Amino acid sequence: MTPEYKIMSKPKIGIIMGSKSDLFVMQDAADVLKELGIGYEITVVSAHRTPDRMFSYAREAAGRGLKVIIAGAGGAAHLPGMVASLTHLPVIGVPIKSSNSIDGWDSILSILQMPNGIPVATVALNAAKNAGILAAQILSTADDAITKKLISYKENLKKKVEESASEMGDV
Amino acid sequence: MTPEYKIMSKPKIGIIMGSKSDLFVMQDAADVLKELGIGYEITVVSAHRTPDRMFSYAREAAGRGLKVIIAGAGGAAHLPGMVASLTHLPVIGVPIKSSNSIDGWDSILSILQMPNGIPVATVALNAAKNAGILAAQILSTADDAITKKLISYKENLKKKVEESASEMGDV
Amino acid sequence: MTPEYKIMSKPKIGIIMGSKSDLFVMQDAADVLKELGIGYEITVVSAHRTPDRMFSYAREAAGRGLKVIIAGAGGAAHLPGMVASLTHLPVIGVPIKSSNSIDGWDSILSILQMPNGIPVATVALNAAKNAGILAAQILSTADDAITKKLISYKENLKKKVEESASEMGDV
Amino acid sequence: MTPEYKIMSKPKIGIIMGSKSDLFVMQDAADVLKELGIGYEITVVSAHRTPDRMFSYAREAAGRGLKVIIAGAGGAAHLPGMVASLTHLPVIGVPIKSSNSIDGWDSILSILQMPNGIPVATVALNAAKNAGILAAQILSTADDAITKKLISYKENLKKKVEESASEMGDV
Amino acid sequence: MTPEYKIMSKPKIGIIMGSKSDLFVMQDAADVLKELGIGYEITVVSAHRTPDRMFSYAREAAGRGLKVIIAGAGGAAHLPGMVASLTHLPVIGVPIKSSNSIDGWDSILSILQMPNGIPVATVALNAAKNAGILAAQILSTADDAITKKLISYKENLKKKVEESASEMGDV
Amino acid sequence: MTPEYKIMSKPKIGIIMGSKSDLFVMQDAADVLKELGIGYEITVVSAHRTPDRMFSYAREAAGRGLKVIIAGAGGAAHLPGMVASLTHLPVIGVPIKSSNSIDGWDSILSILQMPNGIPVATVALNAAKNAGILAAQILSTADDAITKKLISYKENLKKKVEESASEMGDV
Amino acid sequence: MTPEYKIMSKPKIGIIMGSKSDLFVMQDAADVLKELGIGYEITVVSAHRTPDRMFSYAREAAGRGLKVIIAGAGGAAHLPGMVASLTHLPVIGVPIKSSNSIDGWDSILSILQMPNGIPVATVALNAAKNAGILAAQILSTADDAITKKLISYKENLKKKVEESASEMGDV
Amino acid sequence: MTPEYKIMSKPKIGIIMGSKSDLFVMQDAADVLKELGIGYEITVVSAHRTPDRMFSYAREAAGRGLKVIIAGAGGAAHLPGMVASLTHLPVIGVPIKSSNSIDGWDSILSILQMPNGIPVATVALNAAKNAGILAAQILSTADDAITKKLISYKENLKKKVEESASEMGDV
Repeated sequence: MTPEYKIMSKPKIGIIMGSKSDLFVMQDAADVLKELGIGYEITVVSAHRTPDRMFSYAREAAGRGLKVIIAGAGGAAHLPGMVASLTHLPVIGVPIKSSNSIDGWDSILSILQMPNGIPVATVALNAAKNAGILAAQILSTADDAITKKLISYKENLKKKVEESASEMGDV
Repeated sequence: MTPEYKIMSKPKIGIIMGSKSDLFVMQDAADVLKELGIGYEITVVSAHRTPDRMFSYAREAAGRGLKVIIAGAGGAAHLPGMVASLTHLPVIGVPIKSSNSIDGWDSILSILQMPNGIPVATVALNAAKNAGILAAQILSTADDAITKKLISYKENLKKKVEESASEMGDV
Repeated sequence: MTPEYKIMSKPKIGIIMGSKSDLFVMQDAADVLKELGIGYEITVVSAHRTPDRMFSYAREAAGRGLKVIIAGAGGAAHLPGMVASLTHLPVIGVPIKSSNSIDGWDSILSILQMPNGIPVATVALNAAKNAGILAAQILSTADDAITKKLISYKENLKKKVEESASEMGDV
Repeated sequence: MTPEYKIMSKPKIGIIMGSKSDLFVMQDAADVLKELGIGYEITVVSAHRTPDRMFSYAREAAGRGLKVIIAGAGGAAHLPGMVASLTHLPVIGVPIKSSNSIDGWDSILSILQMPNGIPVATVALNAAKNAGILAAQILSTADDAITKKLISYKENLKKKVEESASEMGDV
Repeated sequence: MTPEYKIMSKPKIGIIMGSKSDLFVMQDAADVLKELGIGYEITVVSAHRTPDRMFSYAREAAGRGLKVIIAGAGGAAHLPGMVASLTHLPVIGVPIKSSNSIDGWDSILSILQMPNGIPVATVALNAAKNAGILAAQILSTADDAITKKLISYKENLKKKVEESASEMGDV
Repeated sequence: MTPEYKIMSKPKIGIIMGSKSDLFVMQDAADVLKELGIGYEITVVSAHRTPDRMFSYAREAAGRGLKVIIAGAGGAAHLPGMVASLTHLPVIGVPIKSSNSIDGWDSILSILQMPNGIPVATVALNAAKNAGILAAQILSTADDAITKKLISYKENLKKKVEESASEMGDV
Repeated sequence: MTPEYKIMSKPKIGIIMGSKSDLFVMQDAADVLKELGIGYEITVVSAHRTPDRMFSYAREAAGRGLKVIIAGAGGAAHLPGMVASLTHLPVIGVPIKSSNSIDGWDSILSILQMPNGIPVATVALNAAKNAGILAAQILSTADDAITKKLISYKENLKKKVEESASEMGDV
Repeated sequence: MTPEYKIMSKPKIGIIMGSKSDLFVMQDAADVLKELGIGYEITVVSAHRTPDRMFSYAREAAGRGLKVIIAGAGGAAHLPGMVASLTHLPVIGVPIKSSNSIDGWDSILSILQMPNGIPVATVALNAAKNAGILAAQILSTADDAITKKLISYKENLKKKVEESASEMGDV
């Protein structure tokens, strides 16, 4: 394995992004996976500036034990779709509203509108947290421990809304 | 299990759509799952006209053994997101360019732009085939037989392109 | 009635929003109703994080004496449409340009483009004040006192424009 | 009352449209009101070609006993908003995708984006049926007979979906 | 003439806007007309809050000696089109990107997409200066003095670009 | 004068278009001018394929007695704006939804969004008829005969709507 | 050289497309190059279905003597950008409005919005003919024979417009 | 040669922009050309305010030894397309998101959507750096020294990504 990949014990999720400047968004994916106790690695892989690195990352991902790849990119965002073309693993795409982007429309359409045969599981603009949760849901289809954590996570979301409602009622 | 769900042996994927008129798109998901030998069920569940049915379908899905839900809808497409709010299973959303839709933009944005905590794995407009393949990829993370089929499926895509290229060369 | 709903004497209008962070917009609906002397309640109900709460809120609204529901939400805004599917009361939708939103387009289309059978009365982006006025207009169809207040409200709008015109003329 | 207004016994809803060519859409509003047993009138009122007629129609509507006005228009659709400026009655706007329209965007934005003080209850593109249902919902806030019909209407929508589901199950 | 209209000697151009808050844009029209020595008046006329005022303003404009009306408005911008429906004078519409506006798209489409028979001469978003120049061009079709000023104005534009070019060359 | 310009007695309006294929739209401008008894000429001038011809056409237009130029173009529609840069005459731009166009958005924005100093009076997509009427309105600022015809034209528009209303009332 | 590439004597331009179904558009590039006497090859290379083929095609292009690559693709169109990342040759991108595309917006933005460092020379939607002409212009910077042909080509465009103008004048 | 053009030894690339205020974007083109050792000139040429200057600049460019023209403009951006119509040299267009622009959409579509026969090589919004690189690529088709620099430039892009990846791995 290339040494610069950031490793936790048992990385099952690979988080990649087109540029280090995307980390302000993609960190959310790592954080939620850590919260759910799921091992991940995180690094920079550019489709356009390091195509060979992208090829070897995508081609070797399954062999290294990764189960899901989360790829974030902005503008003409080719990273998620190209990685999906190079592996049979499920790939989750995070459109990023970078400084180059036209209000995010370019990132969204470049990731979402993949041709028949090569899907990318696209989440909302800048929604790296949801990418992390979706990755956990995918693992949970064969992992009861993760399922329990996801159910608990959902329960917490509910409680926070109920607390907000209570606070409003007190006003 | 509600008797009207169309059943194959061992349904692991639930395919639902907002209206029977969406079947012309959603059939592609069923077809590719059949091609990959993965059991599915397919039925109509409307978020807006049958909200109770949607609730029970989503809430009972995991218990009935489903692993992934594919939900297609057009216009203000709430079905995928609402089902995702009601289950911890991964939900794949298929935006449909229905007659009511504004060039598909409404369907895409209604499905894609989910808030933090509740992801929907969105595929391209009308791309039910890719939804089926993505569901298979999700199952493949814990099923080597499906993995092999997906690798073979990808190989076939490649061969068809190469054949097209050969034909062009002959002209 | 769930205790956290904020209550005025005789609440006839229920104001709900997907997140407490939407209050900066939705407060305008409450303010104009207060100005018109119409009782309302206001709380947080999330379609995606508290679907059960949304179900019971919508299903019980008419029985609790509410006549109109105003629902605000951003991004993939499913709250207004789902509430409309669960009650026969008129539902007014307020698209909110939240931080997640793509310039508000997602909120607008997710609320506006409802299928046949389940209308949502959509107002302009962030236009919670207009949602409040529309709710008053609905009640006014059977309430002469509110009608008088609305006529007076319109008269005031006119006077403010005429004052602006006078000031310009003085310059 | 101007003699050309099409009259049913007890017209409570006024349906107007900018051009006779909009009737192919607006007829749906009339049909659903007839189905629900609610009296309506229907005619052509053009904001741009008959501004005086629009003024008198809107100004006299409440006096003639109308409770709700449904106004449909395409392109730079000013009719719903201008009528709303001239009456305190609730006005429902139907954006129409006319031959002049840019995919309906102009109609939608011209009707939806009303300034503070003058709301228009906007429904989906071409959704005159939903405009009719919304008008019925507004009347139902003070009319139990209409409430019962709306509940029954919703029940029928549900049954049709369930029938579709059954048919699919039979395949 | 209504006393609040701001008057210069021989007002030939009427500048109106939907709200006093639009003055930050519309002042540019007045300034360029002053620069070209053309008399104008400027005031607030709201299509939605003062429809009667709009009617009388538009209907009396020609009689008062106005030759061209410049109307600016934001959001669902009905003022230019409604004024055009009420007078035979040429009407120039200025779409304004107000705080309510969706990036200006609503203002542009509401003003531009007028139906056959009732044109509005639309200029660019916030381009009140161009509205003033266009009004001058219209008057110039029968006024050689204004023609000369316009030719001189164009000459000045050219000189400023050439100066910029010279400065760059010096760097 | 270049001999191929189509001439009526006393041409005051020049109608030009980027390609002969635009004639199906631009003919409407000629027809309404003929109906109003205003002399025009009509020809093809391409900004991109005949830039010299465009230069001489625009530069000579005022000298030849033209008072207004109507220019229609599709796609990256530069003709109206470039002609406006080359003459002090008012220029009316007609965005055309040609086969090359992206739903007309490119034509609209290329014509409308002119920089300060060089206005183009833009009308709706394909609205050549309105371009003709606007040209007549411009001439009418100094021509009472045209003013009368325009008032009569507006009267006819009104009558047609009233007839439609009558027919509906009879049903 | 891979045998299926369609070869003319001295191929300097490589024309590739994502799918054989794109040939109805891309043939125009070949035709105009033939008309200008410039050798080309044409074949199918899919970024998503044949990533290895794309890699070797792009990496070997310069070595095989190609000077410019023209790449057409629809939907999430990654082919032009990925090829540009793999070669130092200039790459011309042709956005194709395929059946999968959302009115072409996805193709345009996926090709145009490349990050700093990796340009793609993008032409208009479906404008393969212009891609061919641009390729010829690039070669012409070092080839006087092609320059002459391009000047003659431009002259022909002018003549056709002048003929259209003459025909109009005859009517 | 007009004296104000900024000259380096052997200018082969002409960089022009519609307004001096575009320099904050266009400077990037000059900087990258300087970095690659390619001579350029840079100046202001406005299509709308200095059409004659544009004509002579474009017509004389090839004769003065320029090989490629890079033209940047915002709003209704006619400069790149008009220059392309006036020369046989390849023209690279840079859409600029100026203060007048509607999120850049107007600039992009005005430059990109050129008709058949007159291509403009369009790069991403504000991507003047890529315009410079593309110009270098064009020259490199007949200049091995530039080819080597471009290969080295690409290599540097790769190294920077790999350094970012290393840094992440260290965290």
